[in-house]
Amino acid sequence: MNEYLKHDEWCMIEEGFTPENHRSSESIFSLGNGNMGQRAMFEEHYSGKTLQGTYVAGVYYPDKTRVGWWKNGYPEYFAKVLNAPNWIGIDVKINGEMLDLAKCKVSEFVRTLNMQEGVLIRSFVAEMSNGNQIQVNAKRFLSIVTSEVGAIRYSVAALNFDGQISFNPYLDADVANEDSNYDEKFWDVLICKSSNGEGFITAKTKKLDFHVCIGMKYDVYKDGQKLEMLPSIKEETKYVSNTVEFDVKQGEELSLYKYAGVLSSLNHDKNEILEDAQKVVAEAYEKGYESLLEEHVAAWASKWANSDITIEGDVAAQQAIRFNIFQLNQTYTGEDERLNIGPKGFTGEKYGGSTYWDTEAYCVPFYLSTSKPEVTRNLLIYRHKHLQKAIENAEKLGFTNGAALYPMVTMNGEECHNEWEITFEEIHRNGAIAFAIYNYIRHTDDKDYLAEFGLDVLIGISRFWSQRVNYSEAKKKYVMLGVTGPNEYENNINNNWYTSTIANWCMKYTQEAMAHVKETNSSRFNEIMNNLKFDFDAETAKWNDIIDNMYYPVDEETGVFLQQDGYLDKEQILAADLDPKVRPINQHWSWDRILRSCFIKQADVLQGVYLFEDQFDEETIKKNYDFYESRTLHESSLSPCIHSILAAKIGDIEGAYDLYLRTSRLDIDDYNMEVHEGLHITSMAGTWMSIVEGFGGMRVQNGQLIFKPLIPKEWKSYSFKVRFRGNLLNVRVSADEVGVINEEGDDISLFLIDDEYVIKKDSSLVIEHS
Amino acid sequence: MNEYLKHDEWCMIEEGFTPENHRSSESIFSLGNGNMGQRAMFEEHYSGKTLQGTYVAGVYYPDKTRVGWWKNGYPEYFAKVLNAPNWIGIDVKINGEMLDLAKCKVSEFVRTLNMQEGVLIRSFVAEMSNGNQIQVNAKRFLSIVTSEVGAIRYSVAALNFDGQISFNPYLDADVANEDSNYDEKFWDVLICKSSNGEGFITAKTKKLDFHVCIGMKYDVYKDGQKLEMLPSIKEETKYVSNTVEFDVKQGEELSLYKYAGVLSSLNHDKNEILEDAQKVVAEAYEKGYESLLEEHVAAWASKWANSDITIEGDVAAQQAIRFNIFQLNQTYTGEDERLNIGPKGFTGEKYGGSTYWDTEAYCVPFYLSTSKPEVTRNLLIYRHKHLQKAIENAEKLGFTNGAALYPMVTMNGEECHNEWEITFEEIHRNGAIAFAIYNYIRHTDDKDYLAEFGLDVLIGISRFWSQRVNYSEAKKKYVMLGVTGPNEYENNINNNWYTSTIANWCMKYTQEAMAHVKETNSSRFNEIMNNLKFDFDAETAKWNDIIDNMYYPVDEETGVFLQQDGYLDKEQILAADLDPKVRPINQHWSWDRILRSCFIKQADVLQGVYLFEDQFDEETIKKNYDFYESRTLHESSLSPCIHSILAAKIGDIEGAYDLYLRTSRLDIDDYNMEVHEGLHITSMAGTWMSIVEGFGGMRVQNGQLIFKPLIPKEWKSYSFKVRFRGNLLNVRVSADEVGVINEEGDDISLFLIDDEYVIKKDSSLVIEHS
Repeated sequence: MNEYLKHDEWCMIEEGFTPENHRSSESIFSLGNGNMGQRAMFEEHYSGKTLQGTYVAGVYYPDKTRVGWWKNGYPEYFAKVLNAPNWIGIDVKINGEMLDLAKCKVSEFVRTLNMQEGVLIRSFVAEMSNGNQIQVNAKRFLSIVTSEVGAIRYSVAALNFDGQISFNPYLDADVANEDSNYDEKFWDVLICKSSNGEGFITAKTKKLDFHVCIGMKYDVYKDGQKLEMLPSIKEETKYVSNTVEFDVKQGEELSLYKYAGVLSSLNHDKNEILEDAQKVVAEAYEKGYESLLEEHVAAWASKWANSDITIEGDVAAQQAIRFNIFQLNQTYTGEDERLNIGPKGFTGEKYGGSTYWDTEAYCVPFYLSTSKPEVTRNLLIYRHKHLQKAIENAEKLGFTNGAALYPMVTMNGEECHNEWEITFEEIHRNGAIAFAIYNYIRHTDDKDYLAEFGLDVLIGISRFWSQRVNYSEAKKKYVMLGVTGPNEYENNINNNWYTSTIANWCMKYTQEAMAHVKETNSSRFNEIMNNLKFDFDAETAKWNDIIDNMYYPVDEETGVFLQQDGYLDKEQILAADLDPKVRPINQHWSWDRILRSCFIKQADVLQGVYLFEDQFDEETIKKNYDFYESRTLHESSLSPCIHSILAAKIGDIEGAYDLYLRTSRLDIDDYNMEVHEGLHITSMAGTWMSIVEGFGGMRVQNGQLIFKPLIPKEWKSYSFKVRFRGNLLNVRVSADEVGVINEEGDDISLFLIDDEYVIKKDSSLVIEHS
Repeated sequence: MNEYLKHDEWCMIEEGFTPENHRSSESIFSLGNGNMGQRAMFEEHYSGKTLQGTYVAGVYYPDKTRVGWWKNGYPEYFAKVLNAPNWIGIDVKINGEMLDLAKCKVSEFVRTLNMQEGVLIRSFVAEMSNGNQIQVNAKRFLSIVTSEVGAIRYSVAALNFDGQISFNPYLDADVANEDSNYDEKFWDVLICKSSNGEGFITAKTKKLDFHVCIGMKYDVYKDGQKLEMLPSIKEETKYVSNTVEFDVKQGEELSLYKYAGVLSSLNHDKNEILEDAQKVVAEAYEKGYESLLEEHVAAWASKWANSDITIEGDVAAQQAIRFNIFQLNQTYTGEDERLNIGPKGFTGEKYGGSTYWDTEAYCVPFYLSTSKPEVTRNLLIYRHKHLQKAIENAEKLGFTNGAALYPMVTMNGEECHNEWEITFEEIHRNGAIAFAIYNYIRHTDDKDYLAEFGLDVLIGISRFWSQRVNYSEAKKKYVMLGVTGPNEYENNINNNWYTSTIANWCMKYTQEAMAHVKETNSSRFNEIMNNLKFDFDAETAKWNDIIDNMYYPVDEETGVFLQQDGYLDKEQILAADLDPKVRPINQHWSWDRILRSCFIKQADVLQGVYLFEDQFDEETIKKNYDFYESRTLHESSLSPCIHSILAAKIGDIEGAYDLYLRTSRLDIDDYNMEVHEGLHITSMAGTWMSIVEGFGGMRVQNGQLIFKPLIPKEWKSYSFKVRFRGNLLNVRVSADEVGVINEEGDDISLFLIDDEYVIKKDSSLVIEHS
C-alpha cells in the first residue's frame, strides 16, 4: 500500500511533490471524456520518471505476438493500447533555463483532480538554479461536451525577479509505447505544419492505417490583456512548436491558453481530417477557455445527478466511491457502439485490448443503473457485431456449426491475447456475454432486443458450450475439460464449477429466449432459425441432455461446490496463515508454486453463486462463502467486490465493509503496488456494485426491484441513484431509515426489506429499519 | 513423407539436384566430429533456399526470452544453438560468371555421405549461361582425429571450353541465426586478417564472450602440380578472402585444397587463440589433405568396429541404422565432460540448448553399449557439475533444503527454455537423470561412482520429489499435482503415472545408493551427509512414507495404468480412427483441441513400463501396450522406439518392425516433414535401442546380460556389438541361430534365450532358436 493522497469528498489531492509517486499520480489524476484520455503528465518538460500516455478511443496497434513456441490457433497479434501523439506539451524557460520539476526546487506543490467538475489543477512554486522563483498554476480538461477538444490554462508568475519567460507550446508525434513487443514505434507522421499561433500533425499507425490529427491554437495573456506574439516556428518531421518570449516584471503573471483538437479516422474521412481538425480547433479557440470550461462543468453536474453515491460520516469511503464513478464516466459514455471499456481505460497501456469479460460481468450493472438503456445496449450490440468473428475464432479451435467463442481480449472481434491458457481455456467469458443480455432485459424490460440482436448471439454461445463438453463414459456425465476459470491461479483444469454452471445456464436461457421470440415475433424467429441453419429438435435435445447430465464437482462431505476436479487434493492452507511478506503471491512466488497452491486469485465458485444466487439457499451460500473467502487472496481487482456483496448477503457487514474498502480504495491507496501502470477501471464498476447490490441489497426479481439495505457502522448514511425501466430512484439509507425518492418516471412498485410498496411519481417513501 | 534418397548399405546418396530438397539434404548429409559440425551447405555461392549452419561445440547464445506475460520463475534467456562463422566458402567464377546451382543448368548431380569414412562428396556438371560446361567434384570432412580441423578438396574441370576459372576461398563471420527472437545478430568480429594463401577471423559472441577463431590456408593444383598464385586479397570487417584466377584449357582440371581450423575459447586462451589457430591451420596444411583423410578414415573404421549394426536382407533398414549410429558418433565423442548431445546435434538450430532428458533417457544406453565407460561417465559428471545450479533452479520455484530440479533445457546448468508448462512441470527429467546413474552402474559395475559423484545428485533429486508431492487429505495418499509428463500433449495434469512412478523409484534407489556408500566408504558417506546437512532419520522416514503411500491413477476395471487423473473422462478415440489428413495433429489442430483430445504424443505410461519392466507381469505390459499404442500418435521422435521395444517384448514382432522402420528412417524419409530443420539426433539412440533391446531382447539383470532375440521376417540376419563390464560382445541373430562372439575381455557368463552360458575369452557360442 501507498497512502499519500489527502482525503476529500470531491477531490483527489496530492500535496508536496514526491517524484517516486509521480507515475502513480499520473494514473490516479488521469482525465478522459469517452473519446480520448490522458495520464496526468506535466505540460512542461519533465526529465524524471513518467509514463507518457495519450489515448484516442478505438485507435490501437496490432503488435506482433510474442510467444515461446508457436502453436496452432494462437492469435497473430496482441492489440496494444496506443500511446498517441502528445498535444499537452508546453516547454517553459525562465531566463533561458528550462523548467523541469526533476531539476529545480519545488515547493507548495498541490495537484488536484476535481471530480465534480472534471478538471485537473496543479500549482507550485519552482526555484530555478539562479534563484529565480516562479509560481505556476495549471488547469486542464478534456471536454465531455465537445469530445474532440481539450484545453489548458498554464500560468507562470515571476515571484522574485524581472526577466524573460518563454513558452514553447508544441505537438509531438515522436512517441512510443512503453509496452512494445519488439521495441518498435507505431506511428508514421504524414503532415507536420505550424504557423503563427497554431500547429497541426497528422499521424497514421504503421498497421491498420488509423489516422489521428492533433492540432493546437494558443494565446498568451498578461493581466487580462492578450499579448502580441512573434513566435519562432518549428516544423520538424514529427514535431511542431511555436516559441514565444516575453519580458516580465516581478509579480507579473503570464497565462498561456492552449486549445487542442484530437481527431481520428474513426470519425473523419482521412482526406479531410486535417481540415476538420483546423475547424475543431478554431471553434474551440473562438469559444474560449472559460466558455468551454463552463459547459464542461455543467455536463459533469448532470452526470453526477444520475450516478452519484453519497456516504456520510466516512470521507475516505466517500472519496473512493466518487473516484470510481468518476473514472468510469470518463472512460465510457455509451455514445459510440464501436467502443468499449478497456481494463485500464485511458490511464495506461497494460493488458492491451479494449474489451474483456469485465465489460459484461462488472460494467454492465453499473451502466444499467446509472445511464440510459442505450448505453448498455451499445455495449451489447458491440458483441453482436463481433458474432461472425467469434464464430471464426471457434472454428480456428476446431468447433463447427456456428459455435461462437468470443475472444478473451479484443479490439475488433478478433482474439488478441497471447497465452493459450487464457485465450483457449478461459471460456467463461462466453457465459458473461450471454448473462449481460439477460441482465439488460431484466433491468430495462427491452425484450425486443432478443429478436433484434440477442438471439443469434445466444445461440452461437450455446452451440459452443454443447460442443465444448464431452460425455465421459467414466463418469456417465458431461464433463468440461481443459478450462481456466475466473481464478487465473489455475490453468487447464477439468470441470471448473463456475464455467460448467454458467454454460448450463446459457443453454437454458437461450431456449427461453427462443421461446419468447417465437411467441412474439414468429417471422423473425423463422428467419433466425433459417439464417443459422438451426436444427431445432436435434440441437435443443442435445442441449437438454447436457443440462440434465452435467457434472459438477462437489465435496460430498460438506456440500461445498468445488472449484474444479481435484481441488481438495491440494494442500489446504488458509489465506490468514500465509506470511503477509509473500503477498501478493504473484510478485513473490513462482508460477509453478502458485498453480499448485490452493490459493485463489479471485472469486470463482463465488462468482457463480453471486450470479445465480436465487438457485441457492442461504446456508449453501454461507458455506461456500466461508470456504472460499478464507482461501481467496483477491489479487485480481475484480475479486473483493463480489465477496463484499456476498458478505452483505449473508449478514457479515464487517466483512463486507473491509472488502468494500479494499475494492474502492484499491488504486487510491495502491493495495497491489501497481497503480503506476494505470487504474483498474473495470473493477471500479464492481465497487459501485458492492454498495448498491451489497449494502443496498438491490436485486431484480420478476421484473421488480428489491432493496434489502444494511449500513456499515462507520457510516451515518449513504445514498445512491438507480435507473430502472424508466424510473430514476434515489435511495438513501441511514442507520434507522431507508428512503426512496421516485425522481423520474411513473409510479413504481418495489420491495423494500420484506414488503412491497408503490411509490408514486415524484414521491418518496421512508420506512424505518433496524 | 519424402523419399528421395537411394538405398545403400553404407552411403546416403542423392541423385539429381532438386532445389526443394536441398534444405533437407543439408540436414541429412551433415558432418560433425564432436567438437564442431556443419550442415551440408555448398562450398560455392548458392542463392537458393538454404539454412546456413556451422556449429562449434559448447558455444551458444543466451537469446532474450520471448513470452507473452512474464511470470515469476521464468528463465531469463533461451539458449540458442549458434550459427558460427562460415569457413567452407569457395566462390567459383567461370569466365567471370559466378557458379550458383540455383542459376545454372545442373546435371549428373550426385551428393554422397560416405558414412563408413565420414566424408561428404559431391559431383555435378554445371552449364553456365554462355554454354561453358564444368565438372565439379567436391569432397570434405571434419577430422575426428584432429577435431579442430576440416579439409575440402574442390575440383573444377573445363569440359567444353578454354578460359578462366577463379576461386575465392573465404571466411565469413557476417552470419545470423534463422532462429533469433529479436532478429539480432549474435557475433562481434574482433580480428579479420588475410594474406597470400591464408586468412583468419576472430569473432566473439555479443553475450557470454565466447571467442571463436577460424582460419584457412589453401592451394591450387593442376594435373598434380601446385600452381603459383598472386591472389587479390580482401580484408573486410567481418570477411576475408583470396581471389585467384587461372587460365585453363578444355579438359583441364583445377583442384583447390582448403584447410581450415576452428578454435574456441572453451579450449584456448582468448589472447592466444589467433596464434593457436595459425598453428593448427599450418599443421593441417603441412600434413596435407591425403594424410589427414587417411587418419580420419582409419579412426572411423575403429568407431564402426565398436558400434556397427549389420542387417542382412533389408538394405533400407541397414542404411537407416548406420545413419543413426553415424550421426550419434559425429555428435558426441565423450571426450569433453563440458559437452552434451543437443537434440539436433550439429544439424540445425531448432530447440536450442544442448541438454535435454533425451541424453539420459535415450543416449546413455547407446553410449554405454558402444563406447568405453568414460563416455557415459562424462555425461553423468556433466550433471554432477550442474547440481548447484539445479538446486538454485528449484529454489526459484520455492523448494528448499537442497532439493534439486535439473533444467528441462540447458547449456550451463541454468534453465533456458521459456514455457512454464515445460520448465516448471515437465519434471520427470529429474527421474531420468537418476535412472542414468543406476543404468551406468548396472552396466559398468562402477559402483564407486556413487561415492565420488552420484550420491549427492541422487539426494538432491529425491529431496525435490519429497517436496514436490503433497499429502491429499481427500485421497489419503501423496499426490503430485501440476505436472507435464513425457506426453507433451497434456499440460498441468495431476498424478502423471510415469512421473509419480519414477519419483518413487528415485527415493528408493537413493536409499540403496546411500546404503552402498555407507557400507563401502563410510567416511565419504559421512562427508556427504555433513555437506548436504542430510537429516537421515527424518528425511528417509518422509521418503518412505511417500513411497508407501503414493497415489497412482489406475483404471479399476481393466487395471490399465492411467496417464493422469481424469484421463478416462476424455472422449476415447483410437489413432486408427483419426483421419490421416489431420496427422500430425500438431500441424493441423489447435493446441486447445490437442490438449482436450485423448491422443498421446509420445510414450508416457509405456515409458515407465519400459524402464521398470521387471515390476510388471507380461499381461500387465500387454494390456497397457495395447491400450496406449492405439492412442499414441508418435508425433515425438522419441516415441516409436520405446513402443517397438515393448512390442518385441510381448512378441508382436510385426508391430515392432513397423515401429522400428518409423524410428530408424524418421529423418531419411522425413516422416514428419521437418527434416529441413535438422536431424533428430537424440532419438537416433532410441533406434539403436529398438534393435538391441527390442529385437535383440538385451536386458541387464543381477549384473548379467540377457538376450532373448527375435528377428523380423524381412531380415536374413542382424548383428550388433555390446560393451559390457570389460567385454565386447558381437551378437548375431538369424532366423534359426543366435551367435555371440566374446571379442574382448575375460570369460563372460550370460543368459541367452532361457539358459545361462559362459563364453570364454575370444570364443563364441552359437545356439539354435525357433
